[in-house]
Amino acid sequence: MMATRPDILIQEVAPRDGLQIEAKWVETDDKIRLINSLSAIGFGRIEVSSFVSAAAVPSLRDAADVFAGIERRPGTIYTALVPNRKGAELALAARADELNFVMSASETHNRANMNMTHAQSLASLAEIVRPAHAGGALVNATVATAFGCPFEGGQPFKKVLDIVKRYLDLGADGITLADTTGMANPNQVSQLVAEALMLVTADRLTLHFHNTRGLGLVNVLAAHDTGARRFDAALGGLGGCPFAPGATGNVCTEDLVNLCHEIGLRTGLDLQRLIDLSFRLPGLVGHEVPGQVAKAGRPLDLHPIPERLRRSG
Amino acid sequence: MMATRPDILIQEVAPRDGLQIEAKWVETDDKIRLINSLSAIGFGRIEVSSFVSAAAVPSLRDAADVFAGIERRPGTIYTALVPNRKGAELALAARADELNFVMSASETHNRANMNMTHAQSLASLAEIVRPAHAGGALVNATVATAFGCPFEGGQPFKKVLDIVKRYLDLGADGITLADTTGMANPNQVSQLVAEALMLVTADRLTLHFHNTRGLGLVNVLAAHDTGARRFDAALGGLGGCPFAPGATGNVCTEDLVNLCHEIGLRTGLDLQRLIDLSFRLPGLVGHEVPGQVAKAGRPLDLHPIPERLRRSG
Repeated sequence: MMATRPDILIQEVAPRDGLQIEAKWVETDDKIRLINSLSAIGFGRIEVSSFVSAAAVPSLRDAADVFAGIERRPGTIYTALVPNRKGAELALAARADELNFVMSASETHNRANMNMTHAQSLASLAEIVRPAHAGGALVNATVATAFGCPFEGGQPFKKVLDIVKRYLDLGADGITLADTTGMANPNQVSQLVAEALMLVTADRLTLHFHNTRGLGLVNVLAAHDTGARRFDAALGGLGGCPFAPGATGNVCTEDLVNLCHEIGLRTGLDLQRLIDLSFRLPGLVGHEVPGQVAKAGRPLDLHPIPERLRRSG
Repeated sequence: MMATRPDILIQEVAPRDGLQIEAKWVETDDKIRLINSLSAIGFGRIEVSSFVSAAAVPSLRDAADVFAGIERRPGTIYTALVPNRKGAELALAARADELNFVMSASETHNRANMNMTHAQSLASLAEIVRPAHAGGALVNATVATAFGCPFEGGQPFKKVLDIVKRYLDLGADGITLADTTGMANPNQVSQLVAEALMLVTADRLTLHFHNTRGLGLVNVLAAHDTGARRFDAALGGLGGCPFAPGATGNVCTEDLVNLCHEIGLRTGLDLQRLIDLSFRLPGLVGHEVPGQVAKAGRPLDLHPIPERLRRSG
């Protein structure tokens, strides 16, 4: 039996971008179980953890143990976020299939987030690519704050696209444009994605949106309509933004899968299994999660006709 | 000074469709204050309350007092939901500017919700139009469950459009297509709106979406791209669905206004004033509300650069 090729690739980031911001410690075994469950549902790419300073992101300080503990499903790429050479070495030692290098378009945000200038970050990327490829790992390079920075505001398209070009020149296999704090709007998305697709083919370009201002799915659809085919999402809509307490996080995986299925796009993912797994998240993180479809059910999960109507015929 | 004509009309329904489902009693004076604040922000249409059985919707049993207490801003249409002739008489006595008649496309839902068959509902509409027009009031007629019914599932376009035709034949001034329980998807919306715009001009057609499965803004945008120009929304995203506990309610007014402004559509509404008003909702209803922009702030409300970066130059 041949699997049908999906129309859209949904890449799961809850274990990294979702759990990263959580105050409650999630046990290593629980992280491993979550990732194994996501693998079993059939994601092509799962961002497992990040190799960054444990002081900066204590919730993911067990990255090596998580990588050591997960089952590797053939066909799934297990990714580690890395900000620099040190992180890349640890990720390769942990047998990450892909390094996800991150630098912000906004230099202010990059210094605040990564404690590096653009020049320092790009020098790190240059050092990472050769050992990664030598070890058989892919390198994805993310432009964070590509759609706006909470300190600087809007980022010129040219600046973002110049970074994409540098990433490609330095040997990145894939590119992600990330709306780190949910500032994107669909017109901007259409324009920037159209420009990006002049530099990189759709199979190498990922869009990473946050739902901070309720526009996550709107922006996914705008990007898809423009030709993008790879999207990050987090089960339950986990994640968040330190500048928006109470705001939602990443685009919610099951909400996105529902949207895709409703408009006839094949994801290769089973919505009910995602919903069932999403139900386990509040127990893990200690609070409700923002995803909607898990609360409402699939659109055609119908309700019984009220008894009094059935009685009256 | 001439006001600029908005590109899109956003009609506020929080006082009716938002408060309707709330368990906590909201004092009549608080309702009046909310509506007066909404008026001051400049909505062209506010759904104030509904004249239905107090047993069925106890939270709006003070409809007449609310209508008696509000200030009438010139240029704002104050609407009352009515299911039948009795409700219409009460609404006209309360000096509603517009009656919003509701019948579900799904006969099962209409019987569950209104305790009437289609024939009974349409007979009521026929009785309502003449006295309404004689009293100087408009009649809007809503097709509830137009995009799907929680009991019956999908509703054929022809059935929905036939109801629209009947409404127009019976003298309705405006038509609303309502996604009562958040089952719509953007492809369906585009197709049904395109068909509806063959029967009724855009200035007479309202789209009413719920965000039950996270697709509220996606569906608004799909409808707008197809030519729709009038949309219902509720401050804070108030509202809900008895079949989806914990799910969000109506499209959130301030989130929709933010989307519109970000893509260059004039709403005539001040986003910051909406956010400020939305902050008062949790105090009124006794729980957090689902709107996102009120939590995250406007996209270009920038944050100060961290002190350590400013120190280091």
